[in-house]
Amino acid sequence: MAANTFGEVFRVTTFGESHGIGIGLIIDGCPAGLKIDGLFLQSELDRRKPGQSKIVTQRKEEEIFIIQSGVFEGKSTGTPISIFIPNTDQKSKDYTHIANIYRPSHADFTYQSKYGIRDFTGGGRSSARETAARVAAGSIAKLILKEIGVSIHAYVSQVGNIKIPENVQPDLSKTEDTIVRCPHPETASQMIDLIMDVKKSGDTIGGMVSCIIAGCPTGLGAPVFDKLHADLGKAMLSINAVKGFEYGSGFGCINMRGSEHNDVFLNENGKIITKTNYSGGIQGGISNGMPINFNVAFKPVATIIQSQNTVDHEGNDAVANGKGRHDPCVVPRAVPIVEAMAALVLVDHLLRNKTVKL
Amino acid sequence: MAANTFGEVFRVTTFGESHGIGIGLIIDGCPAGLKIDGLFLQSELDRRKPGQSKIVTQRKEEEIFIIQSGVFEGKSTGTPISIFIPNTDQKSKDYTHIANIYRPSHADFTYQSKYGIRDFTGGGRSSARETAARVAAGSIAKLILKEIGVSIHAYVSQVGNIKIPENVQPDLSKTEDTIVRCPHPETASQMIDLIMDVKKSGDTIGGMVSCIIAGCPTGLGAPVFDKLHADLGKAMLSINAVKGFEYGSGFGCINMRGSEHNDVFLNENGKIITKTNYSGGIQGGISNGMPINFNVAFKPVATIIQSQNTVDHEGNDAVANGKGRHDPCVVPRAVPIVEAMAALVLVDHLLRNKTVKL
Amino acid sequence: MAANTFGEVFRVTTFGESHGIGIGLIIDGCPAGLKIDGLFLQSELDRRKPGQSKIVTQRKEEEIFIIQSGVFEGKSTGTPISIFIPNTDQKSKDYTHIANIYRPSHADFTYQSKYGIRDFTGGGRSSARETAARVAAGSIAKLILKEIGVSIHAYVSQVGNIKIPENVQPDLSKTEDTIVRCPHPETASQMIDLIMDVKKSGDTIGGMVSCIIAGCPTGLGAPVFDKLHADLGKAMLSINAVKGFEYGSGFGCINMRGSEHNDVFLNENGKIITKTNYSGGIQGGISNGMPINFNVAFKPVATIIQSQNTVDHEGNDAVANGKGRHDPCVVPRAVPIVEAMAALVLVDHLLRNKTVKL
Amino acid sequence: MAANTFGEVFRVTTFGESHGIGIGLIIDGCPAGLKIDGLFLQSELDRRKPGQSKIVTQRKEEEIFIIQSGVFEGKSTGTPISIFIPNTDQKSKDYTHIANIYRPSHADFTYQSKYGIRDFTGGGRSSARETAARVAAGSIAKLILKEIGVSIHAYVSQVGNIKIPENVQPDLSKTEDTIVRCPHPETASQMIDLIMDVKKSGDTIGGMVSCIIAGCPTGLGAPVFDKLHADLGKAMLSINAVKGFEYGSGFGCINMRGSEHNDVFLNENGKIITKTNYSGGIQGGISNGMPINFNVAFKPVATIIQSQNTVDHEGNDAVANGKGRHDPCVVPRAVPIVEAMAALVLVDHLLRNKTVKL
Repeated sequence: MAANTFGEVFRVTTFGESHGIGIGLIIDGCPAGLKIDGLFLQSELDRRKPGQSKIVTQRKEEEIFIIQSGVFEGKSTGTPISIFIPNTDQKSKDYTHIANIYRPSHADFTYQSKYGIRDFTGGGRSSARETAARVAAGSIAKLILKEIGVSIHAYVSQVGNIKIPENVQPDLSKTEDTIVRCPHPETASQMIDLIMDVKKSGDTIGGMVSCIIAGCPTGLGAPVFDKLHADLGKAMLSINAVKGFEYGSGFGCINMRGSEHNDVFLNENGKIITKTNYSGGIQGGISNGMPINFNVAFKPVATIIQSQNTVDHEGNDAVANGKGRHDPCVVPRAVPIVEAMAALVLVDHLLRNKTVKL
Repeated sequence: MAANTFGEVFRVTTFGESHGIGIGLIIDGCPAGLKIDGLFLQSELDRRKPGQSKIVTQRKEEEIFIIQSGVFEGKSTGTPISIFIPNTDQKSKDYTHIANIYRPSHADFTYQSKYGIRDFTGGGRSSARETAARVAAGSIAKLILKEIGVSIHAYVSQVGNIKIPENVQPDLSKTEDTIVRCPHPETASQMIDLIMDVKKSGDTIGGMVSCIIAGCPTGLGAPVFDKLHADLGKAMLSINAVKGFEYGSGFGCINMRGSEHNDVFLNENGKIITKTNYSGGIQGGISNGMPINFNVAFKPVATIIQSQNTVDHEGNDAVANGKGRHDPCVVPRAVPIVEAMAALVLVDHLLRNKTVKL
Repeated sequence: MAANTFGEVFRVTTFGESHGIGIGLIIDGCPAGLKIDGLFLQSELDRRKPGQSKIVTQRKEEEIFIIQSGVFEGKSTGTPISIFIPNTDQKSKDYTHIANIYRPSHADFTYQSKYGIRDFTGGGRSSARETAARVAAGSIAKLILKEIGVSIHAYVSQVGNIKIPENVQPDLSKTEDTIVRCPHPETASQMIDLIMDVKKSGDTIGGMVSCIIAGCPTGLGAPVFDKLHADLGKAMLSINAVKGFEYGSGFGCINMRGSEHNDVFLNENGKIITKTNYSGGIQGGISNGMPINFNVAFKPVATIIQSQNTVDHEGNDAVANGKGRHDPCVVPRAVPIVEAMAALVLVDHLLRNKTVKL
Repeated sequence: MAANTFGEVFRVTTFGESHGIGIGLIIDGCPAGLKIDGLFLQSELDRRKPGQSKIVTQRKEEEIFIIQSGVFEGKSTGTPISIFIPNTDQKSKDYTHIANIYRPSHADFTYQSKYGIRDFTGGGRSSARETAARVAAGSIAKLILKEIGVSIHAYVSQVGNIKIPENVQPDLSKTEDTIVRCPHPETASQMIDLIMDVKKSGDTIGGMVSCIIAGCPTGLGAPVFDKLHADLGKAMLSINAVKGFEYGSGFGCINMRGSEHNDVFLNENGKIITKTNYSGGIQGGISNGMPINFNVAFKPVATIIQSQNTVDHEGNDAVANGKGRHDPCVVPRAVPIVEAMAALVLVDHLLRNKTVKL
């Protein structure tokens, strides 16, 4: 069942609620001998943390992490790596007013329906706070990928109707230069303006994160159900607020002909590559060595600073009053989460791939 | 690992290659006492089979199936249900010319790279023939869903640039009335013309399958990794030729505000519903009782009746010559596959949901 | 859940009932490139088949097998290997008299209680016929083990009160020389006499199968739940009629002191070995390179040719009349099953072990 | 793979080393609505903790536990329950002398061989300290079992050659009355004397834990690989120092006839029971409602306070010097561990059983 576990060989299980004492995770299956770079782990958590800029929620959560097991003298030992991240800014009394109210497009109603009980403080388990655990696990996965030269670059490609112009090839080294994490400075500037406008009106807006994986070896993935892009898709769709996933040519493939869409093979100095890359680096569910690229659509988050009509747990009319701090647009902080989930998928398939030949 | 297995409780494992003696599957975890309706199973297989109309491949494969176990006196016994579907139209000699050639955008290169060996006859395991096993398994899942009033309707919503007009609410009872499986007759007619044109030029074209699930109970899905839409997404992305998945508002959410996108709760005669359904029937990864809807993008299939430049297994220049029979557009036959995979996801979560309360 | 699946990487799923059209299995996760030796597979099935000697059931089942997928030009391709074994001697009408009777110590009552329905012909899924599928799968696993020099030798060490004398070191090359599969000819002769006596009285008797695994590399197993001996134990206990499992010093360890039981390490020409082997080749759940040895206790099978008092499905008094053919002692035919299950465990851990270091 | 995870629906993943900052676990799949009785959890941990009597190790570890998630207002919410148990008595410097020495019959050599690195302080992950996490998880499982009237009673039935006389039916309510946890006071007294003798000589001795499960409903287990006794066997064999498992008639079945061993069914006031219980409450892998009973053999633990010859990591001759505190006999503290693992198996199958009928 394993509803809170991700991966087959490199298995991550997360736990924790938004307003409990903390969140955390266990990685079971991390290979032994990996140098664990704590500073890198911290820097990844910092990319996701609230309060990092004016366009994200102003909650102040310091993401301190504690490695509790599985690391000895700086290296992984092959036993489970457990990481704990204390919650530092929970304010449970803020939430008592919503104990019995189903906030529109939140998980209040569905959790209550499924479990007959829910931790309503701060969203409990449905809070995006859980993604900090994913980022921590993903940073360990990234350390493995670094050793074999695989790099994962996610960035914000669209906010509302502001998008990077189609003819622009973004310079991925610039992603972290702007608080919106869009590598095209002019577009980034417009995005920030839009987000600040949305914020002022107590509203939220959607966006898109794009991701490019370079250096992926051939052979990752599996032919039928566990196609590499199917596992990437599930990984992305499991992130809070995601509504769509496409890779390679994506939805644009619908209006293409096969003669145009097929990627012709070429021999480039002894390496087999493809002339175009509509396949997005994956053919038949298995990586072909070309860059892997995909897009992820994020909805405008449900928490808005406005009053909304709704019902309570008895079906009576009620009003959900938004107040406090919120993320007007989730995509800037989603960038490291997308990267983390992609890293988990790749490392899992990398390890799985070690068993397919004698 | 289980790369050829789908599901946690209702587990389907498929096997078989395009040109071997047959394909098949085992369902482990089908509840006992289900009346197995063989005619329904046959009718579902017939919706997927080749040669059913002028717009699909003219290969003649009769989809005869044999239930080998797990059914006694017409009912499931709780033990594994094994179903075998013999291959009847394999012509292995047709394929010897491509033994060492990597066809563009096929899985030849990636399989060879991953496994060091591949069954090159008819695409082997990468052939869409494997999806017949999925349809057979899905038809058993549908029988379970029928008992609790859940219905799954997939249909073709777009072929190339021809799509059902936005203001049209398609009448889903008409899906099977046209060979293209588009429930809007005028649009269907244009789609058929387009596909016939494409076929004549030996080319292929992409398309979109949309799906609506009605009657789904609340509470299916899981909060974190196994969100219902994440599992639906993986299911769809695991189908051959799929490049994208979106549910509810989908990619359209990017340009929306939260105040517009949030689905307000209403009490309709004692039942809690939402006024709009941008959530696509799923909130926080869990079904909320509203219709579930999603779209799946299919690329133009790679097999075209044209000569294409490529390389062989030694990296030498080569030509892939398309000949014979092919599917000019895959979406008409993909409709039952999309439904089958959706049924597998729903039944699995339905059974999983039986264990979440004491 | 996977109640009919065994293994994590090398995964075997079996299906089929005693009196259906056949039984079979899928291996998912067999590495690519393995030469599949069909004659060896047949010879293993023949070691298990009924009717092979006067001391086993006289049913005549020819174990013909059909490899349906996953093998191309004699080698495994990395895709699922499906094997089907038709049933050839099912006589369903023999069993109608027990449709509603719960035979003592059979699975009739528990199946009915669990599922509310059962295939009562020949024991259905609970029949030991299912083990033919295990032997087929195990024979593929043995082919992998052969390539790295691992050999598995099981043999009958006890029948009733007849056992190999403690001071005798059996010559394992002689196991197949006698129909009882005891490598000590004098003991074998007494065992055969005992079994024939038991058979004449329409009764059955228990026995023990011992197993020695030579050449196992160090490092197989896992520290906590998936200890190598825990997985071997589960494998053996999952075989019909098994009541106990012990490895190394086994139950004899209870009356030993640590100073006597500890296996002292020695350096033998650069290889680290142990002076004694009370550990049975496994320390901390992980193989240490010494021979692995274990014992498996088999009960007297429940099918006897005598009338027994019992109840029917409504709780009324009834009589179960034994008739026909039966195995007076199951251990001679259990030898290849024990070996097959051991092979599945070892190959699974062998493949798992490929992922534990970077 | 999940080498540190146990269970399919009620899934427990443990982490932590003997001398790290603590150990812990996540339960994924605990049903919502369970009242979590913290005092009971503490009392179970106290039954396992060191220093509780003169016959166990004198290490002083207070077993304080922290529930970090998954519980809200005293009840389980259906989300992962994480429990952390800090280490309070680790003395890492005690262990530097064994950094490169392979202690006889410990896991030093096999861990080093498998992973190429190991945490040598206090045995690291191979320490029996890990079992505290199992007891914590098992206590939650016991709370579920209590609600349906299932009770699990383990007790010490043998230490060395001292065993409860065969004609004595032990009074299970007396198990906790003696520090050795043997419910027969006279035998307990002799066991304690024996253990104190063994302790004085710096040695250790083996023992047996027996377990009786009363009130188990019919229908738990599965027909083929996941037989209830096979899962119980794996659970027990995964406990440190276990060498053997038998259930029902156990190894004693070898010398029995089927006519004697078969358990005749009776109708007792409308309930179907068996006259004898050689089946140990399980038939065909599925519980039949009779008491489940099994025995577990524990070896004399490897840590002795004596000097032993061995080799170091380079294969040189070395001496392992035992000193400090040790358990002369592990079975008194193993009683709650056996119960905990049995509870995990039963709850898992209880939940699994909810999905087998429509």
